[in-house]
Amino acid sequence: MLASSLCLPDLRRKAIFDAANPTLMEDLGLVHKAAAGRYSLLPLGVLVLERMKSVYRRCMIRANAAETVFVTMSPADIWRESGRWDGFGPALIKASLNGGGEICFNPTHEEAAVSILRNRLRSYRDLPVNLFCIQKVYRDEPRPKSELLRTHEFYMADSYSFHADGNDAERGYQQMQDVFSDVFERLSLPCRVIDADNGLIGGSRSVEFQYAHGLGESSFVSCECGFASDLDLSAAGPLCPDCGMQTKTLRGIEVAHVFMLEDTYSTRMKLRFRDHENKLAVPMMGCTGIGMTRVLQTMVLEHVHADGIAWPATVAPFELLIIPAGTPGPQINELLEMLEVRSVRYLLDDRNLPRGAKKAVTKVLNPRFTIFESAARDSWQLLGPGQSVETISTTDLIAHLCGASTDDRAAKLGRVSELVEI
Amino acid sequence: MLASSLCLPDLRRKAIFDAANPTLMEDLGLVHKAAAGRYSLLPLGVLVLERMKSVYRRCMIRANAAETVFVTMSPADIWRESGRWDGFGPALIKASLNGGGEICFNPTHEEAAVSILRNRLRSYRDLPVNLFCIQKVYRDEPRPKSELLRTHEFYMADSYSFHADGNDAERGYQQMQDVFSDVFERLSLPCRVIDADNGLIGGSRSVEFQYAHGLGESSFVSCECGFASDLDLSAAGPLCPDCGMQTKTLRGIEVAHVFMLEDTYSTRMKLRFRDHENKLAVPMMGCTGIGMTRVLQTMVLEHVHADGIAWPATVAPFELLIIPAGTPGPQINELLEMLEVRSVRYLLDDRNLPRGAKKAVTKVLNPRFTIFESAARDSWQLLGPGQSVETISTTDLIAHLCGASTDDRAAKLGRVSELVEI
Repeated sequence: MLASSLCLPDLRRKAIFDAANPTLMEDLGLVHKAAAGRYSLLPLGVLVLERMKSVYRRCMIRANAAETVFVTMSPADIWRESGRWDGFGPALIKASLNGGGEICFNPTHEEAAVSILRNRLRSYRDLPVNLFCIQKVYRDEPRPKSELLRTHEFYMADSYSFHADGNDAERGYQQMQDVFSDVFERLSLPCRVIDADNGLIGGSRSVEFQYAHGLGESSFVSCECGFASDLDLSAAGPLCPDCGMQTKTLRGIEVAHVFMLEDTYSTRMKLRFRDHENKLAVPMMGCTGIGMTRVLQTMVLEHVHADGIAWPATVAPFELLIIPAGTPGPQINELLEMLEVRSVRYLLDDRNLPRGAKKAVTKVLNPRFTIFESAARDSWQLLGPGQSVETISTTDLIAHLCGASTDDRAAKLGRVSELVEI
Repeated sequence: MLASSLCLPDLRRKAIFDAANPTLMEDLGLVHKAAAGRYSLLPLGVLVLERMKSVYRRCMIRANAAETVFVTMSPADIWRESGRWDGFGPALIKASLNGGGEICFNPTHEEAAVSILRNRLRSYRDLPVNLFCIQKVYRDEPRPKSELLRTHEFYMADSYSFHADGNDAERGYQQMQDVFSDVFERLSLPCRVIDADNGLIGGSRSVEFQYAHGLGESSFVSCECGFASDLDLSAAGPLCPDCGMQTKTLRGIEVAHVFMLEDTYSTRMKLRFRDHENKLAVPMMGCTGIGMTRVLQTMVLEHVHADGIAWPATVAPFELLIIPAGTPGPQINELLEMLEVRSVRYLLDDRNLPRGAKKAVTKVLNPRFTIFESAARDSWQLLGPGQSVETISTTDLIAHLCGASTDDRAAKLGRVSELVEI
């Protein structure tokens, strides 16, 4: 990929890299503000978001969930069946189509998921089923704030699971908590799991994943022993109910939520299946949600430091940054071809800028390797993990990155996987 | 991945596999109809769509375009600047937010793209820029029809390019036509490129990619010599203007459109840059669009045959289908682990169904390899390209798929890449 294609800002201003910068995401070249609470994602933001989506997807598929794309413009009737056409309140964005149909723009997908299962669920043999999606949802948010933290439209990764009985629903509820712990560990985002209120989603119980940060709008009680609870739900007062120690009240960003829905939606929307005894039964449900674009910003808040963003390798947009001397010449074509064949995620800085301005781009990329071409264009400086610098010819560089000899397939693949499998 | 997670329908009914079946996409288990013109994509549909997105993405990135996610709820003001707030007509879905702002749900992204560049474009050195996205767009379509062919909401892959002068805009216009020819070749979807009308998008010239099919709503004139033209634009009458032969009128599905926009949007929306002489200049623009969900259905129409869908390898959802004898036992865990480490796209049919029903799933998957476990669970039948059948032990199967020895990394990677690099 070429740096000229990414709409990158000038990153030489030091003041950008500060979690307290109120336009941090814009200044980093991750987003463009279209209006209060409504953002476009710029190429660099998309690259990181796509890697985050891969992490989430892989974890969900491993838990036997399957990806879906739910309809966005929902017919009003199924929202009436669930009781949320009026019950969801003013954040639900409604419209009438010219043909006469009333619709809402889905802020969440319980109704959409149940309506899919109503057409397909026959027997207990079809259960459990877990459908997830990663798509934009819409809310008429009264107070958009803090860039991507509270917006009118955002990427949600949400899932809806259906179970033959309460035991399996409980298994699924625990499983999704484990999956999310795994996701946030892979994102290097430390979160606390706390008991929470079910709000507009309904159901009986839920837990939130909270990232402690002053920009957050949630408050929770936390103890050194590991105990954490929603401030409103906490009956503990200032002392920890687990260990009796003094607790702290922290502000947090809610990055994910896991719900036990019981039969709330399946009963209201008349979802049925035949159980082991061939009797009609109502499935139990669970659902989950991760605010993906909110997590994108939370990742920045967690990994920003005085001179850049230390993206974890799981989401860093590029493995290799190539800084040529001046305009890229044909002498690097062989290198680029090798990298492309091997699907190495590289960025070539083709911009007509001074070296200092080019070097600044490493701050928002945090690539595993950076290579600088020498002025004479006959050698490279290679900067890799641990910050050791090697000066190396183009031939040796290719050998180093892709293996010693073009015929030695084993060695090549070994080298490339080192680069790729970070 | 597990077959039980995919919400698959019963595929034993022969009548499903017919391009004239009016519920073809639903019967195949690719989509769920939420309302007229509004569909959810089921897991199998998402898997194919994601592979199509990868093909498009790779081709666009190779042409130095960069992926963006445009805002969906556009402020009215920029649509007023472009003249399309009223000019787009009744298909534009408008709403008012509680806070007072007027918005529309973007049916296309010219305004959104120009507004990003207005904040970032400084000099001719920043050009050309080409931003693409793959996201849902919204239109109040008066006559939704033919499942995904004409809908209220659909996945569009669209791009917006900005150029320093008319020559570069012309280069970009030709380049995007080449990119789309490449995309449709990779999808094995034969299309005709015809001169077309610019419609609500505006600009000076455009070409459409048409797939000839009776379900299409476009008509075009076609000649055996290769000439093709929009029916309304064709001044030729019944004779070909190129060779003088008798032409035919065909119906077609418009799968893509490439536009030369000139300075239509950049002038109206006051987008400027400093040219070589440091004077303010107006960039030229181009734009393109592929109706991705429409192409998904067109792929089905092209590749459906009496007994299944012959997905091309570029979009087939799985490389390997595993049909165990009854419930999958622990004896296949080693095989699954090997496949997962190597990122082989496999489906394990874990459903409690007769073998005949399981075998029917190959019809909608068209995997490169299918393996059937023997009743004694000590061997497999391997069905690969060319339909040769081998009976083989589990150990030999792993050796065959992944290489002879776990220490022989080179051989393993060789085998797996055979499987992966289709």
